[in-house]
Amino acid sequence: MASKRGTVRVDSKDLGIGLVGTGFMGRAHANAWRQAPCFFDLKRRPQLRCVAGKDVKEAKAFAARWEVASVHPTWQALVRDSSVKLVDVCTPNHLHAAMSIAALKAGKAVACEKPLATSLAEARVMCDAARVSKAKTFVWFNYRRCPAIGLARQLVSEGKLGTIRHARACYLQDWGGSATPMAWRFDASRAGSGAHGDLNAHLIDLVRFTTGEQIAEVCGAMEATFVRSRRDGAKHTKSTVDDATLFLARLSSGATASFEATRLATGNQNANRLELNGTKGSVRFDFERMNELEWWDDTLPKRLRGWSRILCTDPSHPWAGAYWPAAHLIGYEHGFVSMAADIVRVLTGEKPILPLADFEDAFVTQCVLHAVMVSAHEQRWVRPDSFA
Amino acid sequence: MASKRGTVRVDSKDLGIGLVGTGFMGRAHANAWRQAPCFFDLKRRPQLRCVAGKDVKEAKAFAARWEVASVHPTWQALVRDSSVKLVDVCTPNHLHAAMSIAALKAGKAVACEKPLATSLAEARVMCDAARVSKAKTFVWFNYRRCPAIGLARQLVSEGKLGTIRHARACYLQDWGGSATPMAWRFDASRAGSGAHGDLNAHLIDLVRFTTGEQIAEVCGAMEATFVRSRRDGAKHTKSTVDDATLFLARLSSGATASFEATRLATGNQNANRLELNGTKGSVRFDFERMNELEWWDDTLPKRLRGWSRILCTDPSHPWAGAYWPAAHLIGYEHGFVSMAADIVRVLTGEKPILPLADFEDAFVTQCVLHAVMVSAHEQRWVRPDSFA
Amino acid sequence: MASKRGTVRVDSKDLGIGLVGTGFMGRAHANAWRQAPCFFDLKRRPQLRCVAGKDVKEAKAFAARWEVASVHPTWQALVRDSSVKLVDVCTPNHLHAAMSIAALKAGKAVACEKPLATSLAEARVMCDAARVSKAKTFVWFNYRRCPAIGLARQLVSEGKLGTIRHARACYLQDWGGSATPMAWRFDASRAGSGAHGDLNAHLIDLVRFTTGEQIAEVCGAMEATFVRSRRDGAKHTKSTVDDATLFLARLSSGATASFEATRLATGNQNANRLELNGTKGSVRFDFERMNELEWWDDTLPKRLRGWSRILCTDPSHPWAGAYWPAAHLIGYEHGFVSMAADIVRVLTGEKPILPLADFEDAFVTQCVLHAVMVSAHEQRWVRPDSFA
Amino acid sequence: MASKRGTVRVDSKDLGIGLVGTGFMGRAHANAWRQAPCFFDLKRRPQLRCVAGKDVKEAKAFAARWEVASVHPTWQALVRDSSVKLVDVCTPNHLHAAMSIAALKAGKAVACEKPLATSLAEARVMCDAARVSKAKTFVWFNYRRCPAIGLARQLVSEGKLGTIRHARACYLQDWGGSATPMAWRFDASRAGSGAHGDLNAHLIDLVRFTTGEQIAEVCGAMEATFVRSRRDGAKHTKSTVDDATLFLARLSSGATASFEATRLATGNQNANRLELNGTKGSVRFDFERMNELEWWDDTLPKRLRGWSRILCTDPSHPWAGAYWPAAHLIGYEHGFVSMAADIVRVLTGEKPILPLADFEDAFVTQCVLHAVMVSAHEQRWVRPDSFA
Repeated sequence: MASKRGTVRVDSKDLGIGLVGTGFMGRAHANAWRQAPCFFDLKRRPQLRCVAGKDVKEAKAFAARWEVASVHPTWQALVRDSSVKLVDVCTPNHLHAAMSIAALKAGKAVACEKPLATSLAEARVMCDAARVSKAKTFVWFNYRRCPAIGLARQLVSEGKLGTIRHARACYLQDWGGSATPMAWRFDASRAGSGAHGDLNAHLIDLVRFTTGEQIAEVCGAMEATFVRSRRDGAKHTKSTVDDATLFLARLSSGATASFEATRLATGNQNANRLELNGTKGSVRFDFERMNELEWWDDTLPKRLRGWSRILCTDPSHPWAGAYWPAAHLIGYEHGFVSMAADIVRVLTGEKPILPLADFEDAFVTQCVLHAVMVSAHEQRWVRPDSFA
Repeated sequence: MASKRGTVRVDSKDLGIGLVGTGFMGRAHANAWRQAPCFFDLKRRPQLRCVAGKDVKEAKAFAARWEVASVHPTWQALVRDSSVKLVDVCTPNHLHAAMSIAALKAGKAVACEKPLATSLAEARVMCDAARVSKAKTFVWFNYRRCPAIGLARQLVSEGKLGTIRHARACYLQDWGGSATPMAWRFDASRAGSGAHGDLNAHLIDLVRFTTGEQIAEVCGAMEATFVRSRRDGAKHTKSTVDDATLFLARLSSGATASFEATRLATGNQNANRLELNGTKGSVRFDFERMNELEWWDDTLPKRLRGWSRILCTDPSHPWAGAYWPAAHLIGYEHGFVSMAADIVRVLTGEKPILPLADFEDAFVTQCVLHAVMVSAHEQRWVRPDSFA
Repeated sequence: MASKRGTVRVDSKDLGIGLVGTGFMGRAHANAWRQAPCFFDLKRRPQLRCVAGKDVKEAKAFAARWEVASVHPTWQALVRDSSVKLVDVCTPNHLHAAMSIAALKAGKAVACEKPLATSLAEARVMCDAARVSKAKTFVWFNYRRCPAIGLARQLVSEGKLGTIRHARACYLQDWGGSATPMAWRFDASRAGSGAHGDLNAHLIDLVRFTTGEQIAEVCGAMEATFVRSRRDGAKHTKSTVDDATLFLARLSSGATASFEATRLATGNQNANRLELNGTKGSVRFDFERMNELEWWDDTLPKRLRGWSRILCTDPSHPWAGAYWPAAHLIGYEHGFVSMAADIVRVLTGEKPILPLADFEDAFVTQCVLHAVMVSAHEQRWVRPDSFA
Repeated sequence: MASKRGTVRVDSKDLGIGLVGTGFMGRAHANAWRQAPCFFDLKRRPQLRCVAGKDVKEAKAFAARWEVASVHPTWQALVRDSSVKLVDVCTPNHLHAAMSIAALKAGKAVACEKPLATSLAEARVMCDAARVSKAKTFVWFNYRRCPAIGLARQLVSEGKLGTIRHARACYLQDWGGSATPMAWRFDASRAGSGAHGDLNAHLIDLVRFTTGEQIAEVCGAMEATFVRSRRDGAKHTKSTVDDATLFLARLSSGATASFEATRLATGNQNANRLELNGTKGSVRFDFERMNELEWWDDTLPKRLRGWSRILCTDPSHPWAGAYWPAAHLIGYEHGFVSMAADIVRVLTGEKPILPLADFEDAFVTQCVLHAVMVSAHEQRWVRPDSFA
């Protein structure tokens, strides 16, 4: 295992990863690739080989911290690196398409951050590229890997909730007040949209993932931009995105669904919440207490019915057994670690613990994002599948 | 105080109340009139003098239980009873208008259950009658008298939340499943609507009461009826109301608002919930924990910010001091008791602890209810004030 | 039902109650007698006929407010009143014995506030008097009538918890800080003890009631008095009671038990908490959320185990069906109302919903209170049954 | 940074760590050393160079998974390894003394798992060895590094709680039922004690850490062993430790304190709970919701007082800023990661974020553990400092 000079050998069985982007998501992904093989039994060990970022100096510091062997001067160079089997795209949204398509053309698998793209048109091109290349694609809908969300999906698919009547999803954050300076996330040309693409993308994916249903129709939507201009160094720049987007929808089963994404919900720091009500039971989830799933079993005698707070840390819960003994909580980063492990499983011919989203699947979510914007702007109901 | 035969004298200073309706609301109101003077210092003691109901035998049993002196064979007789100063209307919705208008014409004050009426047209006629009569009117939006809701209103009006950005209101119940038999609440001709008029009426009133704002525009709405036919004795009858109604709205300040009323939200038994997010703070409330208001003070140092669970049982909280020492919880019925006390206050020239809704105020809420139905049916955005 | 003058006749079937004491407990009891027949079907209607208090003027105001027919100048006169069938003793602790014994001698049933007495000796004399008189006795351990506590008892007795391993009881209040002025509750000669007799009495009763076990041995105890002198008008008076008393114990089954009573637990306003852990399940309760019982069912598959929050407001929960529909919460006062109903049941030959404590039963609790004080003072383990 | 063959160079500035023990704690520590430099800015990067375990094959698999360069056949060999600057002891308790003392004699720093030793005598010898060697020692009281616990300590030391009146500590687990097979933790000769040394050790440390006070006197204690024999392969072996140990204590300030450690508290999986009540405020903590600290500020107006749930994930909270943005939760393992970082800080001449426990400090905790056992066995009060 150890060479004379105390080095760690690069095993030919390793799976080379190249990472583009060294911001918040870059860190989360670097950590995930590093940690996945320590906790999961994988056929090949993922190895973060190289990074590229918009600033080479920053990328070098990043590489030193995360023990990444090389830094490429450009993302194009990284995409050409023959040791790279999967390109991990963690850049601002408007760069997803070019990078992913180049990587696919170079025959690499691609794991791209969400939302897939800044627009439906871009997303469509990415999907087409994926179809042509036949390489595996993945989109980082990390909350799918939360054990509580995985359990919710299992309960629904086992019929424990009966027929779903209502889905209630909101992702409430509060970091977007007027004191927060300009950033790419407030610029529509780079982000596509604001809270909508950032947070509703997660909610739409989670409702689809947990219920197995589609968003059949958007029945009303509204956007709001409260902070119209933001400090940007010495000057002020216009914010061109929504601070909040809400919409109503009907699922394919006829269930009602409501969605709200906002960055101005004071006191809700990361409240990614989902509730499903069915004819036999209900579940609810709040990412601020991410280790817990609340479950209501309506088949119990009335005297014993209650919301049960399940700590989803038991080996019987998806992904949880890979980490610590029951009730030794996991955190935000573990969703990425579990997802990295599932990606490796797929790339080595195994099945993921629960399904992952690929470009095609993320395109369906993108259609919903688009339908909501049309609904809000034209003040009418819209069917997402009319864009498919 | 006590006569020789151990009787309780009818004090000429008593305030005679006549109650129409002996169902669930009848009980809640009878209890309220009986209890209010034991807990609140009032200029005149309300005295429930007489009742009328659709079934005289039932009304007699009701009167015996609640120690009500007389039973009238018809509501018309009750309205004519000269000892009655206020007629309390607790009947199904479609009877509100006729009874209230007759009482107003007889010069009585009227306290009517919510929603004001089954339709906008009926509500308008009631409002006109109230304006003509000059008698005092009241609508039983009982949740306004919940100390936690009262505190929420105070915090908003004191500026502690800053400018409101979001209101999030839902009233989730689960008693309306397919096993529940037919009743007037499922019949549009008697109820007007289902969950919408029953529960959204409360939510609209609460958002208006706590924020002091109006619902400027309904930005999308949807109705759902999942249980289309219900057991009705030996046969099945069609349910003609919504099981759930959701809508989005913009408040007069520009804040976004979302509303959901449902009777099929399994596990949510009486979850009348309200959250307000402002630029300086937030509050949230759930009637299933009705003694608590959660408050977030965004002006604290970040290190100390948190959702604070305030037990609204202190004498400094509205109405709470009338009951028990701090942290000795009150229940559902106390909202009615406090409201009865505030009604007496108004009738005896005093100010209520916090404002009550009269017919005119309830009409504004009815306009919103109507706008939502139009929005859902016509799949477009609607301004409630276009009906005013 | 109604006489010509609008009076309420005194029915010969009524059950005459005489109340001694017009403070906090006097109000709670007056309300209970008044409300019980409105909610429960009883063979005889309890009627609060007369009151006596230390201050006649205060007693008259009390009687006016609660519509009590007569005020007696002394408790002795009340005890002699032939219309009184049950004497309800709500006075400071040191008066319990004399009043109860006089009432028993006069052939009345007695309902006495807890703790039974200020000392073991007094309690023993009261018990003896009860035994001699054969009249029914009751001690107001009101928390037994909390539906959640009733459900806890049922779950234990049905075997749903298996064998109890641990009981964990604390009653945390915070009103006893140094700003709180002198009162009888801080005077050992009138109160017997402080937090101990006031709050541990409840806890001991609740552990015995819910588990059906006895406190076999006190395994260590400690008292603390932090506020040694209190403002008393213009001067300061010595507080002669404990602010907090803690003890450990072994139950008859061998289970461990811990107890803590305090009036200085800042932020805990009325946290009467109980947790029981058994080999098959657990329950926990906090009076600050008195409508809820948390239940853990350890026989479920691990994947589905969780703490289930049962809202104990369903007709299937003890006493709850008498009040409002499910999830329409009840409050502090309802424990007294339900207890008044159960007392009437016993006096009219019916069974109470769940057992009530009589003097003999309360004496067992008093022995534990005494054993704890001995243990704390002598720094040794003590068996309560050595005093029986 | 990267050599030609893709290897990671061993930097001479790295800090060599040798790990003894490859069980649950071995994993937690390996992860901690690996992760610390990715999140914290450290003067020297800790590098886990070598491991030793009771089973060489297992140790090799462990090394492969965690990318550890070498495996030593014995712990003695590891202690002699010149590349090792700190020996990390994660073995069963009875091995702590020999390993730690050998490492100290070899001039290495030592980080030893808690409890320090199986007995007071062993602990004393370890302390003496530490004093003689002058090497740095550390004891893995990992919960000190929980940001919520760190904040609790800060609030107390800033005076925000005023004078402490009560500490209430329990560590409730439920994995120790009769189905759990024999293991070293149930063998007094290897573990010293059961729940007591395992869990009360943490509680005692946390009370001391957060309050800055000492356990002045143990005022009663009790042990219980419910499961007396456990399956051990084909046979049954006697469990010689406590399943639960409870005790009462007085802190140096006079505050009362209660402690309970158990492995049979069904439904409490990892409920390491602490509450402190002071004259100006209170805090409470439950490790099952480890990212949260509840704070009560008693200096607010009564109307606004409540338990505030602070999500301790802000950069202003100790250690939290090293990880993710606010409200992106951390988990169990992060306490170890933060502790590894603080250990490196101390070894490189920096100050830890908050104090760490060394052998001398852990000895004080061991004296309390011992006093509790004496109290339980001799049924009397005991002063821990009599053993110091």
